[in-house]
Amino acid sequence: MSNDEKALQLHEQWKGKISTESKAPVKSGADLALAYTPGVAAPCKEIAKNPEAVYKYTIKSNTILVVSDGSAVLGLGNIGPAAGMPVMEGKAVLFKEFGGVNAVPICLDTQDTEEIIKAVTWLAPGYGGVNLEDISAPRCFEIEERLKETLNIPVFHDDQHGTAIVVLAGLINALKLLKRESASQKVVVSGAGAVGVAITKLLLNHGFKNIILCNSKGIISAGAKGLNWMQEKMVALTNPEKLSGSMADALKGADIFIGVSAPGIVTEEMVRSMNPDPIIFAMANPVPEIMPDVAKAAGARIVGTGRSDFPNQVNNVIAFPGIFRGALEGRAKQITEDMKMAAAHAIADLIPESELNEDHILPEPFHPQVADVVAAAVKAHITETNILD
Amino acid sequence: MSNDEKALQLHEQWKGKISTESKAPVKSGADLALAYTPGVAAPCKEIAKNPEAVYKYTIKSNTILVVSDGSAVLGLGNIGPAAGMPVMEGKAVLFKEFGGVNAVPICLDTQDTEEIIKAVTWLAPGYGGVNLEDISAPRCFEIEERLKETLNIPVFHDDQHGTAIVVLAGLINALKLLKRESASQKVVVSGAGAVGVAITKLLLNHGFKNIILCNSKGIISAGAKGLNWMQEKMVALTNPEKLSGSMADALKGADIFIGVSAPGIVTEEMVRSMNPDPIIFAMANPVPEIMPDVAKAAGARIVGTGRSDFPNQVNNVIAFPGIFRGALEGRAKQITEDMKMAAAHAIADLIPESELNEDHILPEPFHPQVADVVAAAVKAHITETNILD
Repeated sequence: MSNDEKALQLHEQWKGKISTESKAPVKSGADLALAYTPGVAAPCKEIAKNPEAVYKYTIKSNTILVVSDGSAVLGLGNIGPAAGMPVMEGKAVLFKEFGGVNAVPICLDTQDTEEIIKAVTWLAPGYGGVNLEDISAPRCFEIEERLKETLNIPVFHDDQHGTAIVVLAGLINALKLLKRESASQKVVVSGAGAVGVAITKLLLNHGFKNIILCNSKGIISAGAKGLNWMQEKMVALTNPEKLSGSMADALKGADIFIGVSAPGIVTEEMVRSMNPDPIIFAMANPVPEIMPDVAKAAGARIVGTGRSDFPNQVNNVIAFPGIFRGALEGRAKQITEDMKMAAAHAIADLIPESELNEDHILPEPFHPQVADVVAAAVKAHITETNILD
Repeated sequence: MSNDEKALQLHEQWKGKISTESKAPVKSGADLALAYTPGVAAPCKEIAKNPEAVYKYTIKSNTILVVSDGSAVLGLGNIGPAAGMPVMEGKAVLFKEFGGVNAVPICLDTQDTEEIIKAVTWLAPGYGGVNLEDISAPRCFEIEERLKETLNIPVFHDDQHGTAIVVLAGLINALKLLKRESASQKVVVSGAGAVGVAITKLLLNHGFKNIILCNSKGIISAGAKGLNWMQEKMVALTNPEKLSGSMADALKGADIFIGVSAPGIVTEEMVRSMNPDPIIFAMANPVPEIMPDVAKAAGARIVGTGRSDFPNQVNNVIAFPGIFRGALEGRAKQITEDMKMAAAHAIADLIPESELNEDHILPEPFHPQVADVVAAAVKAHITETNILD
């Protein structure tokens, strides 16, 4: 039986991958009188008096929403809200199993930016955070930014930031291993959608100076046509040498390639045109921009992919469960750049220098400490003004 | 320690009365490849191809939303969405523990009718039903009616229909015991909000002919002032003798009193003014319209309240878990009057005639068969045109 057939069979058995379970016993009238009427009126009144008490008495302290509109589900594209449910349920499973965070999957029957913002705003009172998921660019940027402005609970678009954090963690270790400095590296990011933009921004914040962002038409540069507003914004932040041309042009003399684009678009020749010992993260799924063995044969020194069957898997399950757990435990209003950066360092530091090697720059998803160290790092980087009061 | 203090302490321990739990194992890369990528794409694609498959592969088959806007929470009034969470969580607990139905509590940060309708519509794709809760009248009527028109999943306002169903079940048994016919009874319903109106409608559908609906100002009759649109609509359906005046006037010569109004407003004198052996359901909480011993002393034959410490508790936990389980199992598009009526009969029939007595006209909330028989009755009364296809 193929993996797909097995997955279908299991999904049919599960009939939904999550359930809601009671933490309160209701086996007697006395139980009911405490968990439900009349006793339940007591916490209601406390919260009505003091809104902050919602964290003390309800699920808000440790439960988030996983929200999608089904517009960019996995690599499947715009398959709509109902068809997106298996992914959002899966995400809810990962939040719980890896991070101990309760999560409710929500697939909205609208793909209108304003309506999605309204829906999430109306849903917020009972929940401690919002993980946006599989919403297409550039709408995802505006939705996230606007919600961050108005809500006082963490809002995080995992497709963007989760991946960016793990990529940064991998690069920190790759550069450590190769004894290079981020500021001196020429980086090509292929894919200028949600993920590519987020990776670029986080790398810039970390200290990379020379990043060239490409889309399917080539280098994103001043005057390039058909850019969305976010890509326009990226022009000023990237490509300091003002290159133009194709991605192949950009790769000449580059040190690092980060692909979140399309299968097989990087050739051996392109790898050979890079500086010696290049680092290649080819994360198109399931088929990478270049297969690891091909990249290695062409001179790549360190190769990462999105796949579990090759070394150095860039898997955001390393990041998001711990990030939300840390943010919720520290009662953060927002997940800031500092907190993301701290998460990346915590992930990188999980591999002792003695164990660092070209095929081991990132911890496994099942590393037993990963959520703990990420949560602790995130929590330690919540500034005072970012704490809910 | 008082019950309130104990409830507060427990709510603080629980930190939310429900959790989300995984049904899918994710202990290995192979597990992840089935519950999450790449395997999860298989059910996504099946649902994209055939929307009906969402019931086969996701939580939709057995998970509902419990939705409130915090405008009419218990007897506490308009305490807002966050303060309503403990009640909605409690309701979710009861759905799961009594009916085996997963339920997600949602407290919306809007009290605008149109916005609530939009929010629920956008949330619907991933969920199998909507239990509206603690939304004030008359908005609750419009919200429920409009959502029933547009959504093809069951929408049910439990405050209205759950209570109405249990009241009808109690009356069926009370009349059986006293060998009276519903058509001959003069019924006074005190309280013309959501619950009073729903009770009146269900009793009319059952075959009661003479119902007088009262609000705090007296009998709802043609020309009464300050009525909302739903109360105006009730004028034509009730009060066939065209009485006017106070509730005390209405009670003269009545056979049945149903109170969903205010504590202590029914006096011994009023009970004495009723026909012999009246039936009194005094359900104001926690203090009934008249205390059972006082009502009995004044001649009442059968007395029910909303409280667990008196006989004949009218508790809608007898109804709603089984109703949703039956509707979900039978894949009903709506919960119809027929299904509600069937639920009331199933509840009433749970007490064998030999066990029926004045202090035992309704099953206990913890009766082990109640959800099963209600679910079976509801399922059996789903008509073919009401089944999702």
